[in-house]
Amino acid sequence: MTPGLRIIPLGGAAEIGKNCTVVEQGEDIVIIDCGLSFPNEEQYGVDIIVPDFTYLVENRDRIRGLFLTHAHEDHVGALPYFLRQLNVPIYATEFTHAMIRQKLEEKTDVHSLDLRTLKPGDKVACGQLSVEPIRVTHSIPDTMAMAVRTSFGIVLFTADFKLDFTPIDGKKTDMSRLAALADEGVLVLLSDSTNVDRPGWSPSEREVSGAYQKFFSTAPGRILITMFASNIHRMQQAFDVALATGRKVAVAGRRMENTIDVCSRYGHLRVPTGVRIRLDDIGNYRPEQLVILTTGSQGEPMSALVQMSREEYGRMKVLPGDTILYSARPIPGNEAAIWRTVNRLFRLGAVVIYENAGAPIHVSGHAYQEELKTMINLTSPFYLAPVHGEPRHQHQYLEFARKMGYPEHRLFSMADGLPLCFDEERAWLGEPVPSGRMLVDNGGQPGVPDEIMRDRTNLANEGLVMVIAKLDIEKGELVEDLELDTKGLFASEKELANILSVVQSELQRWPRADLQDAGLVRSSISDEMRRHLSRRLKLRPIIVPVVIEV
Amino acid sequence: MTPGLRIIPLGGAAEIGKNCTVVEQGEDIVIIDCGLSFPNEEQYGVDIIVPDFTYLVENRDRIRGLFLTHAHEDHVGALPYFLRQLNVPIYATEFTHAMIRQKLEEKTDVHSLDLRTLKPGDKVACGQLSVEPIRVTHSIPDTMAMAVRTSFGIVLFTADFKLDFTPIDGKKTDMSRLAALADEGVLVLLSDSTNVDRPGWSPSEREVSGAYQKFFSTAPGRILITMFASNIHRMQQAFDVALATGRKVAVAGRRMENTIDVCSRYGHLRVPTGVRIRLDDIGNYRPEQLVILTTGSQGEPMSALVQMSREEYGRMKVLPGDTILYSARPIPGNEAAIWRTVNRLFRLGAVVIYENAGAPIHVSGHAYQEELKTMINLTSPFYLAPVHGEPRHQHQYLEFARKMGYPEHRLFSMADGLPLCFDEERAWLGEPVPSGRMLVDNGGQPGVPDEIMRDRTNLANEGLVMVIAKLDIEKGELVEDLELDTKGLFASEKELANILSVVQSELQRWPRADLQDAGLVRSSISDEMRRHLSRRLKLRPIIVPVVIEV
Repeated sequence: MTPGLRIIPLGGAAEIGKNCTVVEQGEDIVIIDCGLSFPNEEQYGVDIIVPDFTYLVENRDRIRGLFLTHAHEDHVGALPYFLRQLNVPIYATEFTHAMIRQKLEEKTDVHSLDLRTLKPGDKVACGQLSVEPIRVTHSIPDTMAMAVRTSFGIVLFTADFKLDFTPIDGKKTDMSRLAALADEGVLVLLSDSTNVDRPGWSPSEREVSGAYQKFFSTAPGRILITMFASNIHRMQQAFDVALATGRKVAVAGRRMENTIDVCSRYGHLRVPTGVRIRLDDIGNYRPEQLVILTTGSQGEPMSALVQMSREEYGRMKVLPGDTILYSARPIPGNEAAIWRTVNRLFRLGAVVIYENAGAPIHVSGHAYQEELKTMINLTSPFYLAPVHGEPRHQHQYLEFARKMGYPEHRLFSMADGLPLCFDEERAWLGEPVPSGRMLVDNGGQPGVPDEIMRDRTNLANEGLVMVIAKLDIEKGELVEDLELDTKGLFASEKELANILSVVQSELQRWPRADLQDAGLVRSSISDEMRRHLSRRLKLRPIIVPVVIEV
Repeated sequence: MTPGLRIIPLGGAAEIGKNCTVVEQGEDIVIIDCGLSFPNEEQYGVDIIVPDFTYLVENRDRIRGLFLTHAHEDHVGALPYFLRQLNVPIYATEFTHAMIRQKLEEKTDVHSLDLRTLKPGDKVACGQLSVEPIRVTHSIPDTMAMAVRTSFGIVLFTADFKLDFTPIDGKKTDMSRLAALADEGVLVLLSDSTNVDRPGWSPSEREVSGAYQKFFSTAPGRILITMFASNIHRMQQAFDVALATGRKVAVAGRRMENTIDVCSRYGHLRVPTGVRIRLDDIGNYRPEQLVILTTGSQGEPMSALVQMSREEYGRMKVLPGDTILYSARPIPGNEAAIWRTVNRLFRLGAVVIYENAGAPIHVSGHAYQEELKTMINLTSPFYLAPVHGEPRHQHQYLEFARKMGYPEHRLFSMADGLPLCFDEERAWLGEPVPSGRMLVDNGGQPGVPDEIMRDRTNLANEGLVMVIAKLDIEKGELVEDLELDTKGLFASEKELANILSVVQSELQRWPRADLQDAGLVRSSISDEMRRHLSRRLKLRPIIVPVVIEV
C-alpha cells in the first residue's frame, strides 16, 4: 500500500495536467479527465495525441473511477484509446455522457461501458477517496469542478472555468459550495491558468448577444458565423438573436449539426420554433433573412468554411455581401491557416469580422486574473498547483500567488508524470512515473514511433532517392546500369544521372569479391549517393538502395 | 510603345505588392524592391519564396533601374535570384547597399553589379520616368519612400513606414517634401497597410528605451534580449541603456554580429566605448552586469536563443535568474514555435517577458490608422491602392478611405500580376501579366514544381511503400515473393505482410501473357496495394512498384 497521497498529471498536451490527472491514496486511484491534444505543425501525419496510459494499466486494479469534468475534446477525446486498455466506471453529467456517446458509438461497444451519471452535490465513494462535482461556468454546459476528498484534505480541480454571473443557461458557478470546501479544508487547488496573462475579469458569454444583435440587424446580406462545434451557449445566442431580428438559421458542418441535435434532445439548446431551416433551403430566403452557423474557425482544411473559402463546398457558396463573424479565438499554431482563409473570403467579396470592433463577437471560456484570484480566495487552499496552462502560465500564476502571500513551499509547478506527493507535514515533487504522449497516426493507430516521425520530417523536407542495382552475385558484377527514382526531391535529371554514373564507376572498380557482398554494395551505394548529393547539390534526401541479386 | 502607365505588383508574399512592383510607361520600366517571403507551414522543404521575374526578363530592355526602399529581406532578399536573370542599375542608399553587399558577396560577383547610391532629394532620370527617394521612418535606417514621376502624375510608394517624431537616429520622415508632392500632383498612393487594424498612432521606437531602463536596472541577473537581427535602432537603445545602467553587452548569433559590424562601420550604430564584450568573456562578469543580444525571436530552429532553450548552444547556457525580453512581434505562423521556445526557457528557470507589461519592449515599425490617414491627407493622392498588406488589410484601408471621402472609382485593391492601368481620364485593373511565386528549395534551387510539393505533402503525412517484384518476362512468372520496404508509414509488419501476400496471390492467378507485361504488373501492384492499404488500414501512402525483369 502506497503511503500518503499523490497527484500525477499524465502527459499529452503542452498544457500541464490538462488531459488526464491521477489522484491516488493507498489502494485507491481516481482519474480526472481523459482528453486529447492536437499535433503541432512539425508532427506530420499525426491526427491527435493522447496520454500514455501505461501507469494506469500497471495499476488497473486500484482504479475506482474516471471522472469527466466536461465534454471538450481536450478532456474527453482520449476515451476511445483509454477504453482499449481499461474499462472502469466513467462518471459524468448526463449531458457530458450524451456528448461522448455520440463519438464513442463510432469506435466502441457503448453498451459494455460502465457509464454512471453525476449530478452536482453527489459524493461518489471511491475506496478511501470520494469525489464531489461542483458546478462551474465554462463554454460548454454542465462543467464540473471535482473535489476529491482524501484523508489529507480536499484535492480541488477547478476544471476549465470562468466566473460568469450571467451565463446563458442561468446555471452559475456554485460559489457557496466552493466556499464551504474552504471550511472543510482544501489541501491543494489545481486551478485552470490558461488566461493568467489577461488582467481583470472575463466578459460574460452573454456579451456576445449584443454583438450579434448589432450585426444581425445592420448587415446588408447574409451572416455567417464560425465557432467551435461544441460552443452551445454561443449557438443559443445566435438562435435567439436570429428570432429577435427576423433571420433564419441554417447550419453547415456535420459535427455542428450533430451537436445541435444532441443538445436539443437534452434540453441544453432551445431552438425557437420556425427559426432553423435546412441548409439546402437557404435559396428560398433573401440574404438579409439568413444566418449560417459553420465550423472552420481554426482554418481546419476539411471544415465547411475553409472549403467555402476555396470554392469547394458543394452545399453553398460565399457571396459578395456576406458578413462573416469569427466567433472564436485562434488556437496558437492555427493563425497562419486562419489568415489564409480570411484572405480568401475577402477575395470572394465577403466582409470578415475577426476582431472585437467595440462589441465582442467572442469571449473566452477561461477565467482572467481576478477570477483566478477569487477562486484562490474563496477556497483557501493550503497548496497551489496551477494546471491547464503551459509553463509560462504556471509561472505567472505562481507570481500572483506570491503577491497574495503564499510562501514558496506551498507553491508547485507540476510536470507530466511527476507526482505531487503529500504526507501529514509537507508536499514535494516525487520521482517520475511512466507517462508521456502517444501520437495517433492519421490511419487511427496510436503509438507512432520517433523513428517514423524522423523519417517523415526528412521525407517532407528532403525527399527520397531509390537506387536499384542488379547484382550477379556469383560473377561479382553489376548486371545493368544503376537505376534511380526519386520522390519529393528537387534536382535536375542531368545532375542526378551524373552522380549515379560516378557511383556506378566506383562500384565497377571494385574487386570481384566485394561485389559478391550484397550488404556491402547496399551500404556503399547509400554512403556514396549521400556524399555526392550533399556535396554537389546540398541535398540530403533519404536514400533507399535496392540491391537485387540475380 | 505601350501607351499609358501601368503599375504591376509581382508575386511573392501573401502581402500584395510587398516584394516587387513594376512601374512602366512607354519604353521605360522602373522596379521598386526585390524581396523574398517565407514559406508557410505546409510548404515543406522550401527555404524562401521569390517573385517570378518572367515579366521582367521578357521586358529586360526597357528596365531603367531597380530602386530599393530599405534593407529588409522582404524588400531586398530576392536579389540573388533576380541577378541570375537580370543585371540592371540598382539604386539604394549607402547603408542599404552595405547591408545587401554582405549577403550578395556569398552568392554573386558583387563587382560586376551596377550599384548606384541614392540620397534623399536625388532625382534619378529613367527615360520618361524619374525617381525621387524621400526619407521615412521605419525599423531599419535609411528607409526611403519612392516618388516615381510619370507624365500622368506622381506614383508614390510609401515603402514600409511609420511617422516617428523621435526616431533613434534623429532622421524624421520628410513630411514637408511629401506635402510638396501633393502640390505637384500625386496620381496614386501605394501605401503600407500592414497595421491598418491598429487604432491610433504607433508608439515611437524610443519608448523601448524606457522599458529597457526598467528591466536593466531591476533585473537580478543577466538580461537576454531577442530581436530581429536587422533592428539596429533597437540595438542602439540596448547599448545606450547598458551604458547608463552599468551593464556590458555581448551578442549571440552570427547574423546579428554581422549587422552590428556593418552598421558600426557606416555610423548607423554607435557602440559606446567599453560596453561591448565578447560572448566568450561573459564568464568574467557578474550576471547583473550583463546584457546579451540574440536572434531567435521567431522560434527559428537554428537561432542562438532556440538552441539555448534546447540546451544545445555551445557558447552559453540559459540559467535560473536570467530575464529574457522578447523584443519583437510574432510573425503569423511562428506563434507555436515561439511558445514552445518560451516554455522551454521557463523550464530552465528563466523569466521570459513577452508582452508589454506597462512599458513596451517592442513597438511596431509600421504606421497605425491615424498615421496612414495622415499620409493620405499630406500627399492628397487622386487614387489609392494600399499595398504591403493582405486582402484583409486592403479591405480595411479602403474602408477608411471611403470615410475620408474617396469615391469608389478612385480606390483599388491590387493583386499580384494584375496591372493598375492609367490613361488621361481614368484608372482600371488590366489583364494579368506572367507573375507568381517561385519556391526556392532548401538545396538553394528556385522553382520547385507543384508535383514535388504534392509528393512532399503525401510523404510527410502518409509515407511511402516500395514493392519489389522480380519478374521472369519470358516465362511470365514471379521469380520470388514480392518484397516490401516502407518509409514514414506506420503499420504493423504482419498487416503489411498479409496485404502483400494477397496482392501476390492475385498476380499469381494471372494468365502467363499478362505477367509478361512489366508495365501492367507495375500498375496492378500499385493499384492493388493502394486499395488494400486504404481499405484495411486507412493508409494512403505513395506506392512505388519496382518491377525487375530477370
